[in-house]
Amino acid sequence: MEAAVGNVIERGDKVLSVVSGLFGRRFAEIARRRGAEVHEMKFPLGSSADPSKIKEELESGEYKALTVVHCETSTGALNPIEEIAKACRDEGVISIVDGITSVGGIDVRTEEWGIDLLVVGSQKCLAAPPGLAMLSVSERAWECIENRKEELPDYYLDLLRNKGYMVDRLSPRRTPFTPGVPALLGLYEALKLIEEEGLENRFERHRIIGEGMRESIKAIGLELFPEEGAYSNTLTSFKVPEGIEDKELRGRMKEKYGVIVAGGLEELTGKIVRIGHMGISAVPQNVFATVSALECALHEMGFKLELGSGMSALEDVFLRNNL
Amino acid sequence: MEAAVGNVIERGDKVLSVVSGLFGRRFAEIARRRGAEVHEMKFPLGSSADPSKIKEELESGEYKALTVVHCETSTGALNPIEEIAKACRDEGVISIVDGITSVGGIDVRTEEWGIDLLVVGSQKCLAAPPGLAMLSVSERAWECIENRKEELPDYYLDLLRNKGYMVDRLSPRRTPFTPGVPALLGLYEALKLIEEEGLENRFERHRIIGEGMRESIKAIGLELFPEEGAYSNTLTSFKVPEGIEDKELRGRMKEKYGVIVAGGLEELTGKIVRIGHMGISAVPQNVFATVSALECALHEMGFKLELGSGMSALEDVFLRNNL
Repeated sequence: MEAAVGNVIERGDKVLSVVSGLFGRRFAEIARRRGAEVHEMKFPLGSSADPSKIKEELESGEYKALTVVHCETSTGALNPIEEIAKACRDEGVISIVDGITSVGGIDVRTEEWGIDLLVVGSQKCLAAPPGLAMLSVSERAWECIENRKEELPDYYLDLLRNKGYMVDRLSPRRTPFTPGVPALLGLYEALKLIEEEGLENRFERHRIIGEGMRESIKAIGLELFPEEGAYSNTLTSFKVPEGIEDKELRGRMKEKYGVIVAGGLEELTGKIVRIGHMGISAVPQNVFATVSALECALHEMGFKLELGSGMSALEDVFLRNNL
Repeated sequence: MEAAVGNVIERGDKVLSVVSGLFGRRFAEIARRRGAEVHEMKFPLGSSADPSKIKEELESGEYKALTVVHCETSTGALNPIEEIAKACRDEGVISIVDGITSVGGIDVRTEEWGIDLLVVGSQKCLAAPPGLAMLSVSERAWECIENRKEELPDYYLDLLRNKGYMVDRLSPRRTPFTPGVPALLGLYEALKLIEEEGLENRFERHRIIGEGMRESIKAIGLELFPEEGAYSNTLTSFKVPEGIEDKELRGRMKEKYGVIVAGGLEELTGKIVRIGHMGISAVPQNVFATVSALECALHEMGFKLELGSGMSALEDVFLRNNL
């Protein structure tokens, strides 16, 4: 994120940051620290950003770049990247997209959609060990970086140096500095597994797992946090029901049933529970265990539910979709 | 290096950079990119920086910080960090030291010598996998960082955020962001091995290996590159003798004998050969193989030497020192 923003932005540049949660706000903060004049365009937590409003704002012609998170992991909502990237193209604005919890689990068409800078992490839907970030850079973005007036304050994040080694010399196995070799080898293996599975199959697996999680949450009698239609297939969040203490719920799930789920962040602390299902965690056996643990823990805490209701909804989705 | 310099330096600050090779120059470049007014104090390649000259320069009172490399890996020469750090203390200047190829192989007394920021890499003398950098920060340096006027342009390299997680809360197993977990586990194992060996034993091992390498180089009839007395025990460099082509020499050592040694960098390209002996590579079996391969390759290329002369000098050092 820092390399993407830092290489494009110079002090005083105007940046539009789409903010509908913690990670969108982090992007804005990174741009602000780089000296950009950042306008945060806020959308409600759990909603999908409205691309027509974004386009309207970009039409002012003032912006050099836009930052947006694809899957806002703090809420479980997805932003419409295709439309947002198109609006950026139309208005000559560089689009900087955080695809950390989407790429590898949800279809992201970097070139077709015209995303200028796409940020990916190794440890989410790509299912490699943590420790690496990846970045794709469009021709348009390279041009922008090559033409910057202000020298980059960074040394190691200087993308042009990396371009010299990894793009221009067509030598993808060379890096300008000692890389985290074990992490690279781990990523290489993870990418081979993705190739074996096939991207379409992988997206379909995440889609079915996502639908299964949502249907079981609803069947248990809980309320999904994101707005209808804004759901990401890589993460499901639900509202902590009245009378239930979030920390105790997650504590029971972890200590008694061995299932770790996340709580809300910042203003959503104690208000939502977030269940990640990305890469290797987006498999039936994990989701079975998660829904069962959730049912048991809720039951223990006095929440009224029909035991097995979530499981039955889950199984129904899996069987109907021929998972 | 970037985190150390970046957190301390603000635009317009004066920095004295001790430069006696590529890595000293890189430090200067990092400071310059951060907007510092950098004065490069140059010492000849292969020499040890003269601390009295440095002290004299610092006495001007103009400098906020000094950057210096302990082991200048591009030449194999060591800088006198104890004296330089003392001069910095005396003059109220923040010392930023690159200990990447010394810490773990050569005694570095961070607190006793009063080093303010010490940079270490995982993959050199600590003998852990690559992918991690470590930084120690003195109280004085924290104060300087806490009192900076200009906001840091960095987000992830913001040391104060790390301090909040890793120092103030006394929670060394917490990090503000997802770390490279496998790399951390690798480092943990490597540190346990260091503890088992004992630091004194480890320094002594590097000392004997270093002396052995130097004696064998001389016995073969080659000339060491660093000035007498400037030698690092973690890396030995020698001048490529007349009539010998550096690339061919290293190519033969690698292809025929399975031993990889490094060439010179930048202005020393083709002029010196560098042999690293750090951590797991600083063991007799590796050094035996290296000296033998060097003797054979030189002999094949028509260099006049008595076969076994280097080996005999090496063995003599090992036996005399009771390795």
